[in-house]
Amino acid sequence: MKPLIEIIVVGNEILSGSTVDKNTPYMIDILARSGYAVSFISVVGDKLDDIADVCSNSAGRADVVLVTGGLGPTSDDRTVEGIARAFGLTRILNEDVLKSIREVFRRRKRFMSESNKKQAMIPEGAEPLDNPIGTAPGIYLKLKNNASDTGSETEIYLMPGVPMEMQAIFDTAVLSRIKATYKPSPVETATVRVTGISESQLYDTIRHLPGGDDAFAFYPRYSGIEIKIMTDEHSPLSAVELQEKVVAVLGDHVYATCDESLEEVIANMLLKNRLTIGVAESCTGGFVAHRLTNIPGSSAYMQCGVIAYSNESKQDVLRVNSELIKEHGAVSVEVAAAMAEGVRNIAGADIGISTTGIAGPGGGSAEKPLGLMYAGISSANGTSTKKLQFGEDRLINKSIMSQAVLDMLRLYLKKSEK
Amino acid sequence: MKPLIEIIVVGNEILSGSTVDKNTPYMIDILARSGYAVSFISVVGDKLDDIADVCSNSAGRADVVLVTGGLGPTSDDRTVEGIARAFGLTRILNEDVLKSIREVFRRRKRFMSESNKKQAMIPEGAEPLDNPIGTAPGIYLKLKNNASDTGSETEIYLMPGVPMEMQAIFDTAVLSRIKATYKPSPVETATVRVTGISESQLYDTIRHLPGGDDAFAFYPRYSGIEIKIMTDEHSPLSAVELQEKVVAVLGDHVYATCDESLEEVIANMLLKNRLTIGVAESCTGGFVAHRLTNIPGSSAYMQCGVIAYSNESKQDVLRVNSELIKEHGAVSVEVAAAMAEGVRNIAGADIGISTTGIAGPGGGSAEKPLGLMYAGISSANGTSTKKLQFGEDRLINKSIMSQAVLDMLRLYLKKSEK
Repeated sequence: MKPLIEIIVVGNEILSGSTVDKNTPYMIDILARSGYAVSFISVVGDKLDDIADVCSNSAGRADVVLVTGGLGPTSDDRTVEGIARAFGLTRILNEDVLKSIREVFRRRKRFMSESNKKQAMIPEGAEPLDNPIGTAPGIYLKLKNNASDTGSETEIYLMPGVPMEMQAIFDTAVLSRIKATYKPSPVETATVRVTGISESQLYDTIRHLPGGDDAFAFYPRYSGIEIKIMTDEHSPLSAVELQEKVVAVLGDHVYATCDESLEEVIANMLLKNRLTIGVAESCTGGFVAHRLTNIPGSSAYMQCGVIAYSNESKQDVLRVNSELIKEHGAVSVEVAAAMAEGVRNIAGADIGISTTGIAGPGGGSAEKPLGLMYAGISSANGTSTKKLQFGEDRLINKSIMSQAVLDMLRLYLKKSEK
Repeated sequence: MKPLIEIIVVGNEILSGSTVDKNTPYMIDILARSGYAVSFISVVGDKLDDIADVCSNSAGRADVVLVTGGLGPTSDDRTVEGIARAFGLTRILNEDVLKSIREVFRRRKRFMSESNKKQAMIPEGAEPLDNPIGTAPGIYLKLKNNASDTGSETEIYLMPGVPMEMQAIFDTAVLSRIKATYKPSPVETATVRVTGISESQLYDTIRHLPGGDDAFAFYPRYSGIEIKIMTDEHSPLSAVELQEKVVAVLGDHVYATCDESLEEVIANMLLKNRLTIGVAESCTGGFVAHRLTNIPGSSAYMQCGVIAYSNESKQDVLRVNSELIKEHGAVSVEVAAAMAEGVRNIAGADIGISTTGIAGPGGGSAEKPLGLMYAGISSANGTSTKKLQFGEDRLINKSIMSQAVLDMLRLYLKKSEK
């Protein structure tokens, strides 16, 4: 049987939007991987009556209620009091909990204030769940489910709102208890990351794979699309089998079958083949170099980048022939090629890549519209270029244009590995 | 009187985490600016009974219920049906709505399917709210509040889940109706953005300002901290008065008193003073140039950037004396100064800035630990440098280090304006 699971988030700071709730997405994701779905989420403030009401309502409907927040030592932390009121329980000082709170303060060499004692008061019949990080323990309660005819029970878990503490308690104590009561139907997952293809094109290409309509979720980003594949025992194909089919259908569009970014994939290829690189950027303004240098150890392949924004710097630093710029304009296939060659030379690198284009919002013309971009790649094997046309938003363009030239580099490396 | 406002989010895709709900934060923010607070948020899936239950519960508690999602044409869009069930209403075809749906399809030159007719079925007694963007109208209902002794009424607003459509309906029709019934107590807001100061230092410095504890909210980012100031008629000082006091206390740490980024502030100063810039980066790997070129029109001041990752490129491209590197190492005050001077020369710019440091995670030593950074700035007035020490995370370091050198540039520009 699949349990009905509800989540209750307690805290004015969530309700007012001043804090973003990271706990709910975390729990939903972990639960989904064991085949459990959440049926209802409530967000409530710090008022005692409201907390009691929502807990009582959820407990009347659900098999498992996961409550986060409001376990701290201050006066606006009222979750335990709310639970006690909802179910007519008294709160009792738990000596074990008090001891471990004292221990946390001793380890941190800090003074334990009287208010922290409050965190050792838990409802009668409840069981504390060890908090390996902070002072507020998790709390576990089993209650008779009044709404149920079958005499079933509702299990309530209280966890602190601090994400690290919440996650630690959820991972160590909560999930295992849910699994012990409700047989998990583990979900198999796989990932495919693609680039250079639109979401609708992608959807049309792979939706007809067996079970695909249920198994695929798409997460589009400017840096491509992530396809998450999730299958269970009822799926016609396993996640890994579907992944293989997706890769076969999409071919070169696939840059990773794991959570690696395009720059990580490129870094690994460069390192493996002991190749170095130089980057000449105009329209991408440093974003390509930034992405390549985000990878630890990138100094092994990254020699030099030049952001040649002015024509003078294209000529003086990258040694692009001024006649080329005069004749074809800075945004041209000729200048893209010369920039890639130039940076390869001045960086003393194996490969040079380049971008020149019109990021916007100004600067477009009928002949060279906003969003036009030329990408170049140069190596001992020669120089090639690509013309691409994107949209009108500057930041999106910088992002998509950097993706385009990095993908051109990936495909070059892939081809030359063969 | 302040209304009790509840939000209901309908949709399996929100509950499963595959879509992030952007509508709730949007409404909370807009409502807060008029002095309204949200007291409860529910997230429910696409099941008819669940939708009916949650709508009925909220209507029993609240004065205003804002429902988003589930107004589309497909079979899993059940919000209107749920509302009808909750309050025993029948659904009636609204000819005006049908006409405007037809009009949307005509404009888009697309075929209107039979299923879109469903979107013109609204509960009896309800009023459609014009959707200027899409096909699903908003729906407004006024109901007797059964839970209330005073015979008060609950107002229910249904809006589509697509953020653009939801926002258009909320802005044009919903907010004005709420304001017409419940006198807004407008909240005055102001912003102060600071950098180069820790959150705890900041808090200690400004919390004692009159009314500050209630008025301030802090949003820390790697690019500094944003202080949001919110005051109402009961606050001892207005938001603008508090803003002035914060600026006076924090002095040079303040880089903006509006929503401008540090790079926008710098862009405006450079443009105003007709100054151009060159950027030489080592540890920040292109991120400084990326930030400076994110601003539309940056080609007016940005001449050239050099990401001198290898020692050879520091020598060959930036013309840093190789003896300096040999003697002091690439991460040194001497090389930071030479890089700033070098890039100023080769870019032909008024100002050169530079970064050299150890971003991590490897490369640290006892003498030059991980997170060490030197920033440089060079102009016709001379060259100055700054030594800074940050943490161990590469991406955070790139972010904080870029912020540090940009802030150094801002302070230089500010001083030279005087």
